[in-house]
Amino acid sequence: MEPIKTVTVAGVGLIGGSFALALRRLGFGGRILGVSSPRTIAEATSLGVVDEGCTLAEAVPQSQLVYMAQPVERIVRQLETVRRLAQPSALVTDAGSTKSVIVTKASELFGDGPHFVGGHPMAGKEGRGVAIADADLFEGATYALVPTGDSVPSTPVIAQFREWLDRMGCRQREMRADHHDAVVAWTSHMPQLISTSLAAAIGRALEGIGEIELAGSGLRDMTRLAASSHDVWAGILRTNLVPIQTALTAVAAEIEDLRQALERGEEKGHFERGQRLRRRLAVR
Amino acid sequence: MEPIKTVTVAGVGLIGGSFALALRRLGFGGRILGVSSPRTIAEATSLGVVDEGCTLAEAVPQSQLVYMAQPVERIVRQLETVRRLAQPSALVTDAGSTKSVIVTKASELFGDGPHFVGGHPMAGKEGRGVAIADADLFEGATYALVPTGDSVPSTPVIAQFREWLDRMGCRQREMRADHHDAVVAWTSHMPQLISTSLAAAIGRALEGIGEIELAGSGLRDMTRLAASSHDVWAGILRTNLVPIQTALTAVAAEIEDLRQALERGEEKGHFERGQRLRRRLAVR
Repeated sequence: MEPIKTVTVAGVGLIGGSFALALRRLGFGGRILGVSSPRTIAEATSLGVVDEGCTLAEAVPQSQLVYMAQPVERIVRQLETVRRLAQPSALVTDAGSTKSVIVTKASELFGDGPHFVGGHPMAGKEGRGVAIADADLFEGATYALVPTGDSVPSTPVIAQFREWLDRMGCRQREMRADHHDAVVAWTSHMPQLISTSLAAAIGRALEGIGEIELAGSGLRDMTRLAASSHDVWAGILRTNLVPIQTALTAVAAEIEDLRQALERGEEKGHFERGQRLRRRLAVR
Repeated sequence: MEPIKTVTVAGVGLIGGSFALALRRLGFGGRILGVSSPRTIAEATSLGVVDEGCTLAEAVPQSQLVYMAQPVERIVRQLETVRRLAQPSALVTDAGSTKSVIVTKASELFGDGPHFVGGHPMAGKEGRGVAIADADLFEGATYALVPTGDSVPSTPVIAQFREWLDRMGCRQREMRADHHDAVVAWTSHMPQLISTSLAAAIGRALEGIGEIELAGSGLRDMTRLAASSHDVWAGILRTNLVPIQTALTAVAAEIEDLRQALERGEEKGHFERGQRLRRRLAVR
């Protein structure tokens, strides 16, 4: 018999909704309970993403898996309540964008009883909300798993959760929270912040020009992320401040280094290093 | 009777080839002569992009329009030869990526006799060479026209060339060379150099990691330009050094400013400025 019969998805947005849709497509026959705002629940039930909307207090005690897909700081605030409500054999996991703050808090709260394993599916698309949730979102994505202790424990519930991730097409990678956060500072947070900085600097420099006439596709690509709204990012930035600041300083230093190299006509090595990184990405 | 009967396209690559294809599609019934390497000419004639391959010395004296679509520094080197060979009523124009060096040189060489007007179609796509030339490439693109004097002269040949640009779907904008170069330092050269710098910095930071596991679509977008080869860029960088260095310094300062704002929790304004620039681009 399957150990997981009921799943709580807390935060039924793009990620939580996509997890629910992917789970249903795997043939999961149990119930999926959604915890979100009334408007989101109305949308999510009408789209068939969750079976019904509940409060945390109603949903968690019935569930063997609690999937927290809210913003990082809301996850942190709700962990204690979830811990208190959860079944002794349940798995509580999350999909927050940074891991150190969440996993540190979970290490304090979880002991014997329900297990906590941090998670981060490296998947996304433009836009937000359950309306664009997608059963294919996790296909081919790396899924970071971050244990509170030395490694992810083995329980029947955890084994089933991990089998689901496999069947959704995720590449699971166990790692420490600080490693995760240092890497995403580069692979996720720098692309956003450098796009924002480039767009802000261009805006400042071209203030006198009413229309930006001489823009090509390169500029459009490099400023696409700058359209992101600050409220999506505020919590990520607050919970990964030191790695992000270190990386920003390194990028600024790299730019200054390139500026000096240009003066000497020695910028070729910079292009070659950029190409090497790009090839490593393209190979995957 | 049409004033232009024969066109020389010097440098039959993506831009020169696309100009020739677009011209043919407008119904131009005259001859299009290509000046390029034997291999490129073989490819260009088999694709029907040009009627035949010639040397500069054969092609220019027969042509009322000479369209120079080579790298910037090659254009500069060949200007004197082209000036000497050109018909007195001919228009010599170019499609080089920077304008100050070319237009300054042309101002010295051209006087009475053939006219020179600098040009820069803000169009492109990934890849190089006549094989990907495209009759639609200029559709909707801004086309900078940079006179050697105060404004673009009016001659029958120049009027016909400008009518062609209109019919190809270009938005013509007359501007000074220094203005052009200062703007493209931001709109074209910064996207490339910031992508290169970001990729190089990431490569350096993640050196110890064999595979970049936690990369999403944002990273891929932001490093796409970093795949560009240095030899495409070397001449552009050499001929626009000061505006590029000024812009690089400003971007690095913007990044440092953001780093400090993050520490105070005051980064929202940076996001808002980035969003504003992005909206200005998206509206177009």
